[in-house]
Amino acid sequence: MLSYFPHAAQKEIPLPYRAPGATQKTHDTFLSGKAIHYYRPKGSPEIRHLIDEGFQAFNAGRIGEACRIFADKMLLPEHDTTIGLTIAGALTPAGLGGCIIELMDRGLVDFVISTGANLYHDLHYALNFTLHRGSPFLDDRELYQEGVIRIYDVLFPATVLLETDAYVRDFLTRSRLNEAISTADFHYRLGRDLLERFPGCEEHSVLARAAVAGVPIYTSSPGDSSIGMNIAYHELMNGSRFMIDPNKDVNEICAIVQAGEKNGCVILGGGSPKNFYLQAQPTLWEVYGIPKGGNDYFIQFTTDQVVWGGLSGATPAEAVSWGKVNPGVLPDTVVAYVDSTIALPLFCEYVVGSPNGRRTRKELVHKREALVAALKREAERVRASDAAHATDDARTEV
Amino acid sequence: MLSYFPHAAQKEIPLPYRAPGATQKTHDTFLSGKAIHYYRPKGSPEIRHLIDEGFQAFNAGRIGEACRIFADKMLLPEHDTTIGLTIAGALTPAGLGGCIIELMDRGLVDFVISTGANLYHDLHYALNFTLHRGSPFLDDRELYQEGVIRIYDVLFPATVLLETDAYVRDFLTRSRLNEAISTADFHYRLGRDLLERFPGCEEHSVLARAAVAGVPIYTSSPGDSSIGMNIAYHELMNGSRFMIDPNKDVNEICAIVQAGEKNGCVILGGGSPKNFYLQAQPTLWEVYGIPKGGNDYFIQFTTDQVVWGGLSGATPAEAVSWGKVNPGVLPDTVVAYVDSTIALPLFCEYVVGSPNGRRTRKELVHKREALVAALKREAERVRASDAAHATDDARTEV
Amino acid sequence: MLSYFPHAAQKEIPLPYRAPGATQKTHDTFLSGKAIHYYRPKGSPEIRHLIDEGFQAFNAGRIGEACRIFADKMLLPEHDTTIGLTIAGALTPAGLGGCIIELMDRGLVDFVISTGANLYHDLHYALNFTLHRGSPFLDDRELYQEGVIRIYDVLFPATVLLETDAYVRDFLTRSRLNEAISTADFHYRLGRDLLERFPGCEEHSVLARAAVAGVPIYTSSPGDSSIGMNIAYHELMNGSRFMIDPNKDVNEICAIVQAGEKNGCVILGGGSPKNFYLQAQPTLWEVYGIPKGGNDYFIQFTTDQVVWGGLSGATPAEAVSWGKVNPGVLPDTVVAYVDSTIALPLFCEYVVGSPNGRRTRKELVHKREALVAALKREAERVRASDAAHATDDARTEV
Amino acid sequence: MLSYFPHAAQKEIPLPYRAPGATQKTHDTFLSGKAIHYYRPKGSPEIRHLIDEGFQAFNAGRIGEACRIFADKMLLPEHDTTIGLTIAGALTPAGLGGCIIELMDRGLVDFVISTGANLYHDLHYALNFTLHRGSPFLDDRELYQEGVIRIYDVLFPATVLLETDAYVRDFLTRSRLNEAISTADFHYRLGRDLLERFPGCEEHSVLARAAVAGVPIYTSSPGDSSIGMNIAYHELMNGSRFMIDPNKDVNEICAIVQAGEKNGCVILGGGSPKNFYLQAQPTLWEVYGIPKGGNDYFIQFTTDQVVWGGLSGATPAEAVSWGKVNPGVLPDTVVAYVDSTIALPLFCEYVVGSPNGRRTRKELVHKREALVAALKREAERVRASDAAHATDDARTEV
Repeated sequence: MLSYFPHAAQKEIPLPYRAPGATQKTHDTFLSGKAIHYYRPKGSPEIRHLIDEGFQAFNAGRIGEACRIFADKMLLPEHDTTIGLTIAGALTPAGLGGCIIELMDRGLVDFVISTGANLYHDLHYALNFTLHRGSPFLDDRELYQEGVIRIYDVLFPATVLLETDAYVRDFLTRSRLNEAISTADFHYRLGRDLLERFPGCEEHSVLARAAVAGVPIYTSSPGDSSIGMNIAYHELMNGSRFMIDPNKDVNEICAIVQAGEKNGCVILGGGSPKNFYLQAQPTLWEVYGIPKGGNDYFIQFTTDQVVWGGLSGATPAEAVSWGKVNPGVLPDTVVAYVDSTIALPLFCEYVVGSPNGRRTRKELVHKREALVAALKREAERVRASDAAHATDDARTEV
Repeated sequence: MLSYFPHAAQKEIPLPYRAPGATQKTHDTFLSGKAIHYYRPKGSPEIRHLIDEGFQAFNAGRIGEACRIFADKMLLPEHDTTIGLTIAGALTPAGLGGCIIELMDRGLVDFVISTGANLYHDLHYALNFTLHRGSPFLDDRELYQEGVIRIYDVLFPATVLLETDAYVRDFLTRSRLNEAISTADFHYRLGRDLLERFPGCEEHSVLARAAVAGVPIYTSSPGDSSIGMNIAYHELMNGSRFMIDPNKDVNEICAIVQAGEKNGCVILGGGSPKNFYLQAQPTLWEVYGIPKGGNDYFIQFTTDQVVWGGLSGATPAEAVSWGKVNPGVLPDTVVAYVDSTIALPLFCEYVVGSPNGRRTRKELVHKREALVAALKREAERVRASDAAHATDDARTEV
Repeated sequence: MLSYFPHAAQKEIPLPYRAPGATQKTHDTFLSGKAIHYYRPKGSPEIRHLIDEGFQAFNAGRIGEACRIFADKMLLPEHDTTIGLTIAGALTPAGLGGCIIELMDRGLVDFVISTGANLYHDLHYALNFTLHRGSPFLDDRELYQEGVIRIYDVLFPATVLLETDAYVRDFLTRSRLNEAISTADFHYRLGRDLLERFPGCEEHSVLARAAVAGVPIYTSSPGDSSIGMNIAYHELMNGSRFMIDPNKDVNEICAIVQAGEKNGCVILGGGSPKNFYLQAQPTLWEVYGIPKGGNDYFIQFTTDQVVWGGLSGATPAEAVSWGKVNPGVLPDTVVAYVDSTIALPLFCEYVVGSPNGRRTRKELVHKREALVAALKREAERVRASDAAHATDDARTEV
Repeated sequence: MLSYFPHAAQKEIPLPYRAPGATQKTHDTFLSGKAIHYYRPKGSPEIRHLIDEGFQAFNAGRIGEACRIFADKMLLPEHDTTIGLTIAGALTPAGLGGCIIELMDRGLVDFVISTGANLYHDLHYALNFTLHRGSPFLDDRELYQEGVIRIYDVLFPATVLLETDAYVRDFLTRSRLNEAISTADFHYRLGRDLLERFPGCEEHSVLARAAVAGVPIYTSSPGDSSIGMNIAYHELMNGSRFMIDPNKDVNEICAIVQAGEKNGCVILGGGSPKNFYLQAQPTLWEVYGIPKGGNDYFIQFTTDQVVWGGLSGATPAEAVSWGKVNPGVLPDTVVAYVDSTIALPLFCEYVVGSPNGRRTRKELVHKREALVAALKREAERVRASDAAHATDDARTEV
């Protein structure tokens, strides 16, 4: 294991925020749970059978519907659906990265919008650190004393954070990045760096696999994660002019959606990534004046509820009034209320095992510039046409 | 009412995404509900009595605890707590902006982290558009046909979006902004513009009041709202070089927290704003090497649940293992599980009516540069000291 | 304080399930929280103002709607609505009994269906035992050692259970009850006994107040509480033939609903009491052949969700297909998603302060027999008429 | 299909609560979904692999823990655990009856506590009526007009209710039951009747299979379902003296738990059945004075939450303070937050495929009397011993 932080990790020097006297005894106990790995779905016929025959109603029925909408409609070759995947909630810490890797590798998702945290924690796997199965019922004051970090029931040493941070800062320095770019661009470069330095890591890293598969990965809240924290450090302490330009993200996603023959999404959780995906359609009609007609397919796994009124729980129906979802396709939308850690492996087993379980990859990461240029041309055409109409109107009114 | 979008609004030309034949009859019916206004809490003694005497257990008890922790501890003059407010969920559409205005005006919150959507919808009030009480059970296909937008049970014409967008784009052009700035800087300038063009609007606009009160307002997902969409348009179509620099946001918040005598927060909902606030402490110790010790107070109103494993539902205890919350203060943390639309007005009535219900405002919006400079100095001091130690270590090892 | 259990309580003999060596030191600490009392709503104008003006949307809006449907429609004298209140969740432990007392005293609810637990814990107040405000985050193994019982964040000594049980068994013996009766009958007799032995306890006991106000109280799961446990003991150990006859409960509730000019309900929580109320309408049409047309008003405060598919979360709309709710009245139905400990005091303040905040009491507890007789007559009339038709049909078919 | 209700079903006479003019056209459309059947788990190795290797954290991890606690500990032959299964939520309508049949047939659950609704809807399958997969988003006013009943997304004609009711009433008449019995006794007789009249129906009826396997089935709310409604009709209209005696249920369950070598439970949902199971331990120590020590194993699948404070969401830890759960076994308790329609089939596939996937059946339905007699003897022994001590104390005090 490489060590970007030899100071603390190798010499057992107390971490900056730890009480000096903390023993290491419990530390080992906390971390005695089985290592979490990236489980890869194989397309199990028995799981497909369960979903078709045993998941008949309520949320089990919804999972079945989601599987069939995805496998039988969204993946239908003649539909050529551009498929976005949004990720919120701690999925890579729970070992779900293997599902995402499989979907990208098979061309089943064309672009991804993720919270920064999922990408940051994906780096631990790429860098070969170990996260452990644990319990959500531990005493966090003891964990704190022992230098153990807890994500619900996932446990790992605080040094994993420090080492991962060190890698990110090292990459920033080496990359010589010094301007404003999109998150897709940044994550692609990060993925390439991982592939170079840790050959074979695309088997256990979403970022690395995305770079191989040409899948752009966006983050709606670029400052809101340890990756963003380290970029901010780089600006303040090293005088770098590298930054994320959120405008580029908005326009690239908008351009991807605009170019889609049909558009569909798989939304894990909700949160800011959900809205960042869905707002592409309103951006087109409301801001650029280009009516696109809304999403054609909409699949969400969530435990949030419509009655709490937040976007995470908002239904496909509500999205219709905003022009986010095509009003004619509500039958092709489905929300299953279930923890993604349960739903995603089941869903992926079904999808991977389906006749349409592999598509030619769109490799959109390399087409971003061309697509944005096309969006700009279309928006300029509309603007010119509107201006002409306005002149006509003015003339008529005289 | 000013109109930045005379084309569609005045001439009844069908909006780009509407069917031409849609009648206006139902439109009026949908919008016949009472206008939503910004309710201002006054410190009702009867509500204070209910909270102290009638809210004895379960989540009612938690609301009571939150009120007393805030009023009796966080606001205690000798604690001089730096208080952050984070906002997720559709609060300004529901008329909760009045509570936030009151808190800012009285110096009871020092900085705000909000989703972009809440700020965008706040603009409707500033621009004097009307949102209406409605129902969550309407047919969204009909709403779509009628050009009515629905946020759960809040209804308003789609033209409100178009007019508000037009104002934002007009402001961007007039402002001549052409570089990368923080969201606090941007929102402050937007607030000043509102105050100039719509005198008195600080009574019904969070953005305008924040500009008056010197409260910096941040957004963790700068591209993820109609404001971000319009900034992206400005870059693509007008060739502007104006953008949000997320690094500046990360460092400013970090610097504010670093400078706090004590730190505390009120978290409405959760989501990305919650993490953006909480990550300031890990940024300090994990990235800058400055141990700060975690938050001293933590109040959250949410309907998310810890067992779903997302950050929105994560408890103060879990935050301890990350160094986000001071392990010694768990008694001063509270999570009440209740819709913010219910909790916030009750909470504000209690707090406004308390003996500590007004503080001298910190006006942090004007101190951002100085605080970031102080953060940089401290981080450089730590870096130099670490380097010295490393040299010592190296020497010792020889 | 009377003691039905002098053995354990007065002599500090270890309770049967406690480790003998457990000290009493922590015991006092656990029970140091403020005593919980029955808060009585007074009709606060300031709270009414908040609900009308500040609760404008989302679940706050729903609370407002519930208040107005109840105060302005259900209580309208000309509607003479028969109003059922159902109670699930630990409301009497949380001090909500005062709200229920107030509603019964003012004639604002005509009958009640409650879980047995709420009635059992109401006895603690009647017997003058003290429950304390506490915390949900205690170590239950310590509580167990210390003989402290926890209901979420409400704490009291285990002796309170033993003493209350002793009172129930003493009452059963004294009452000489030796046959099968309805729960309404049983609870009425229990209430009369409380009034005789603890004069004035109707101010702090739902059971006692119900006996004064003539409000019948039903329990859908008669064996499922400590009251039911003690009745079962009485049968097994004392050879008593006293039992609850669930048939009588079904028929009495059915008869009350059948006699209602209009019918409406306030449902706290959901659970078995909710269904026990709602099934009265299907019992009428499906079993007795008497079409009644469904409920006219439906108010529910719950935190359960429709998407989990249980009855507690089922909407008024779903109840329409069962004939439980009149299909024409969906506008007069409302579900607010909020903890009852928050909603009920707010709701009661509004209702008590409304112009219709007092009605003549129906005192249905004394009319049960007459109403059941009327139900039987009507059902026999329908059966005779059906038989006549069947004979006609048979004849025609010949 | 037999018809107990020829009048309405065969002659298309409008049902009592239907508008006469309702057409049948939509009726067929609503009922065009696939028939729901009782899916039988087979012990799929692929599903077992997914659960062990892919379900690593969060609620997926909890499902894995539940599977392993059940298969590896509760079913261990030397533990001879007496296992109770409690059922709330609409599981038989969703086709989950096949899982329960499999568990009973294999001796993996020893007794069952269910809501009445699940047993009533189980009768539809026994009587060979068809329930259909549907949608939760239908217009319930249309369903009502068309005579279609909706349970969330499960649809069937209202005649199914009427026919099933007719069978229940016919059984009541034929059975000549005329006294008070326990629900286990009643459900056993009902199951025997089904087996006689519909040979082979134990493959698609929980009630019939339970009669074959000797598994007693209890209902905590005996009046609260269509079965209870029809028994009530039988008393009122036919003068029957048949009734459920809840005391017998309380004592039988108590006696079963008392006799258990070890005790454990699988709780689906929560609600009244959960408490009815858990209260057996407090009944023993609190009412009968027999310390049993609490449950040894506790598995729950639920979507309710601890923070709402109801019993359904109460944790194993909270149950410790009540003596419901053995304080030493918290590691052998687990709550997975997930819809039972998803969790139960997965859980059953795992358990059925495990090495301990079949046990000798305890056939407790035939041992109820003996167990209650044993309980009575033990309670009398304790009472006598207590009385002796009291006399001693009295003497000492003199």
